[in-house]
Amino acid sequence: MIYDVLIVGAGPAGMTAAIYASRGNLKVGLIERNVPGGQIVYTQVVENYPGFKSINGVDLAMVMMEQTAEKDVDFIYEDVTSIKKEDNLFTVTTNENEYKAKAVIIATGQANRKLSVPGENRLIGRGISFCALCDGSLYKDKDVLVVGGGNSAVEESLYLAGVCKSVTIVHQRDEFRADPEAVDKIKDKDNVHIILDSTVQRFMGTDKLEAVEIVNLKTGDVQEMKFSAAFLYAGHLPATSFLKDLGILDERGYIITDQNLMTSIPGLYAAGDCVIKDVRQIATAVSDGSISATHAVKYVRSLK
Amino acid sequence: MIYDVLIVGAGPAGMTAAIYASRGNLKVGLIERNVPGGQIVYTQVVENYPGFKSINGVDLAMVMMEQTAEKDVDFIYEDVTSIKKEDNLFTVTTNENEYKAKAVIIATGQANRKLSVPGENRLIGRGISFCALCDGSLYKDKDVLVVGGGNSAVEESLYLAGVCKSVTIVHQRDEFRADPEAVDKIKDKDNVHIILDSTVQRFMGTDKLEAVEIVNLKTGDVQEMKFSAAFLYAGHLPATSFLKDLGILDERGYIITDQNLMTSIPGLYAAGDCVIKDVRQIATAVSDGSISATHAVKYVRSLK
Repeated sequence: MIYDVLIVGAGPAGMTAAIYASRGNLKVGLIERNVPGGQIVYTQVVENYPGFKSINGVDLAMVMMEQTAEKDVDFIYEDVTSIKKEDNLFTVTTNENEYKAKAVIIATGQANRKLSVPGENRLIGRGISFCALCDGSLYKDKDVLVVGGGNSAVEESLYLAGVCKSVTIVHQRDEFRADPEAVDKIKDKDNVHIILDSTVQRFMGTDKLEAVEIVNLKTGDVQEMKFSAAFLYAGHLPATSFLKDLGILDERGYIITDQNLMTSIPGLYAAGDCVIKDVRQIATAVSDGSISATHAVKYVRSLK
Repeated sequence: MIYDVLIVGAGPAGMTAAIYASRGNLKVGLIERNVPGGQIVYTQVVENYPGFKSINGVDLAMVMMEQTAEKDVDFIYEDVTSIKKEDNLFTVTTNENEYKAKAVIIATGQANRKLSVPGENRLIGRGISFCALCDGSLYKDKDVLVVGGGNSAVEESLYLAGVCKSVTIVHQRDEFRADPEAVDKIKDKDNVHIILDSTVQRFMGTDKLEAVEIVNLKTGDVQEMKFSAAFLYAGHLPATSFLKDLGILDERGYIITDQNLMTSIPGLYAAGDCVIKDVRQIATAVSDGSISATHAVKYVRSLK
């Protein structure tokens, strides 16, 4: 059997693509290596997806999953290891099988890079967050910590400085890697404190984050500081390593597309957090899903 | 008082922008000349917005409205007539007041283009419709009219041909502008009648549409035909005429933006159906709302 479109990744972007492709009368397969829902499954409260005042991430994933399952979509729970195109036909190889498709949409998302220190895993979603835009407003008038020194760390700190009582930035080097203009702005903020040459060596708290141990990497000095939240910007890992031979990734591993979300390979689309973009939100992921699938439908029709 | 951001238009794009800007701790005003919800208020059933298997358009608008109202957002029910920028401050003039804001997001959407003939205004919603998917099922086993010759007209006619007793397409040119493949399909339908070189010059009926006068634009001949419904696909009009002096519109009136959804005027953003884009859906509107507001928050912070 040949699928019209195979979608890799069943987060909000992939599920939306499946809904749109199915409504476009395509034969659709949706491949997921874990559970459907993507990153939202690890999100405690979603309050910025229009239509839901406040919903648990797992619940939102379930609603989208049921909506997708109502369509004529094959759910395939396998891990894609490679994609090849020959004679206008894609071969999608997983850990278990090989599938054929006329078009493919990659919606594999990205993973947050952790610090790998004690207390971290236990307190993620309980004060430790990877998204200021998502969780910052939960900590109005609180003291929060940001870990990192790149553009994300500095720009999200600017955002948090306008929302929270104070922001402390801990960065392991002696200067920021972020754009100088953004760094200047953050240094101007009265409620931002910067601790360089340092990193977090322990997160503390029982049910929620209460304090952190910060170690100075040059002197070895350790200080304990109290924070209501810690936002980690130690980088992201787009889940695109299986695509590295296709020439469609930028140097960080994000997928390069045109405005129709097609890669340089005709019929190969990408959607959601794995794409080069600025604002990674559920709202932008579902948009990518609808746009990529709408164009994939046109592409598949054009082959006939 | 000076708003941080004023958002013009309270459809899905505008409401999402308000939610995001408010979460970014900006002082937000949301200006709407009609009722909140935008075009979805006129949509009977929404089935392609992720998170809702099937929801009435008014209900979806209400949920989004309540979510927005929970935030610290001023709802202003007025009609914006002009926007000016001087010394990094916008003046937004309405039919009743003048407001100041550091940034503005335009999310005014687009309107369905009317034919502007007698009887039309009176019978819209009483037999005259702009959405076959919304209202077609009300006219099962009835004779219906479609006006237009583009892709929307032809594709919606295909849908109506499967629902209604007969479909008559009236188009003012001597051939369709729609994709040839779709035109071939519609010509194959036994219950579809095509009248070219013609247009509707009058809608007739007291409480509901009963008949139309169709004029042949080449011969001047007029014939009266009975229909239970008329679906108009005469195009769309972006609701942007109040912006025409700002140099930010394309030749059709859609707003030109960069990928951050900012216009050529710093601090002036646009989101949703009024922006140049390909796929106009609720899913893409909420994405625009989140992106424009995220960048507006950064912009406003950079002014301080």
